Amino acid sequence: MSDAQTVTAAALAIGDELLSGRTRDKNIGHLAELLTAAGIELKEVRIVPDEEDRIVDALNALRQSHDYVFTSGGIGPTHDDITADAVSKAFGVACTHDADALALLAANYAERGLEFTEARRRMARMPVGSKHIDNPVSRAPGFVIGNVHVMAGVPSVFQAMLDNVLPTLRTGVKILSEKVSCPFGEGDIGDPLSAIAKAHPDVNIGSYPRFSGDKFSTEIVIRGRDQSAIEEARLDVEAMLVSVEATLHTKAV
Amino acid sequence: MSDAQTVTAAALAIGDELLSGRTRDKNIGHLAELLTAAGIELKEVRIVPDEEDRIVDALNALRQSHDYVFTSGGIGPTHDDITADAVSKAFGVACTHDADALALLAANYAERGLEFTEARRRMARMPVGSKHIDNPVSRAPGFVIGNVHVMAGVPSVFQAMLDNVLPTLRTGVKILSEKVSCPFGEGDIGDPLSAIAKAHPDVNIGSYPRFSGDKFSTEIVIRGRDQSAIEEARLDVEAMLVSVEATLHTKAV
Repeated sequence: MSDAQTVTAAALAIGDELLSGRTRDKNIGHLAELLTAAGIELKEVRIVPDEEDRIVDALNALRQSHDYVFTSGGIGPTHDDITADAVSKAFGVACTHDADALALLAANYAERGLEFTEARRRMARMPVGSKHIDNPVSRAPGFVIGNVHVMAGVPSVFQAMLDNVLPTLRTGVKILSEKVSCPFGEGDIGDPLSAIAKAHPDVNIGSYPRFSGDKFSTEIVIRGRDQSAIEEARLDVEAMLVSVEATLHTKAV
Repeated sequence: MSDAQTVTAAALAIGDELLSGRTRDKNIGHLAELLTAAGIELKEVRIVPDEEDRIVDALNALRQSHDYVFTSGGIGPTHDDITADAVSKAFGVACTHDADALALLAANYAERGLEFTEARRRMARMPVGSKHIDNPVSRAPGFVIGNVHVMAGVPSVFQAMLDNVLPTLRTGVKILSEKVSCPFGEGDIGDPLSAIAKAHPDVNIGSYPRFSGDKFSTEIVIRGRDQSAIEEARLDVEAMLVSVEATLHTKAV
């Protein structure tokens, strides 16, 4: 799953609306960015509908092969919010109203003069043995069980919960990266870049095409744990770009 | 996998950059929207890194349990573009330079006065037995093998390829939907909405919370294949909202 330097994670976004196109997911990219910055490698993402079997299967696959799993969505008060039940089933434990969560929510709704409806009580349900993830935005907590962190789908709530979760996680050695902008398309640099990648096995060189409508350009990203190895690769990439430019210029003349 | 009315699909987005947070995926939401409009149900999405084993495993899982699979990313000319190899491995066939794709690309680069480099020749590689997916944007074709459609990751190219693929697909009965905007949070409507959902088993009622910074509201979406069943559910939802408003107003007075 991981060595001392590497901590891995997977994400599971839950909700019919993400698969019907009604809602564009905003949590995965945010999670990816914050995990990378923290030194945790996001290795897989899945999006599944509000169907218990699919949630259970995906969660069990992901939690067994990654250090951490982060879920988003399906923990609200309505009938289609089934994440707490599915997570409980995946762990083989009961899903019950958590006493602390009930007390927290009861106090919150009393303070706001709102009725503590059965629907609102649903938000206190979680797998037995869970710990809360504080929700400073709308109070109803997320929860952690085993290596699984269950958070809301509403982006502002997801982000606030993630901010509370991040300091509690074990992190690996951060992946450092350097970016080199390349004005040529991948077809012009693919061969020499491949040679550079082979010559620098300690770094990972990614090549990302951009298309402006009439012309391709490329962003080259060099990643690794050792800054000097990255620097050496970067110098080779920059020298390669000068050489490609000269070649293209010669042909154009 | 599907009955006569239902056609299912899965998506597999491939690329380290999607998992590091460097790039926010723009293809999944677009695909979801167009498949739904066409009457194809997107049932699962996975995002995996540029690692052959992970691509192969995800692809084999998804293609066996859905009518169609759509992949994005990893078919460019650089060393980190390994999708064609991984798809070939998943199908147990050789990955070779396709003669038609080589001819197409050779002519295209000759016309543009560009060298047909080894890197550019990489873009003609595909599993033996594949058919092309035309790429009107930058020429290098995607490909179809079995029920798997392999497309580019650059959004403009992905979209153009998808436009060419959609008319070739078998489609199911379209899912119709009606939207009801609800000014109350899910906690206020969760109980009666759950009762309505139970009373209308022929439709699927989704409830999507919105948070403005100080107040929750909800979008209620009623989906189904029968317009009159949707209408009946919608009338019940609207009557419920009037009743909830009266209750909340009475309490406020």
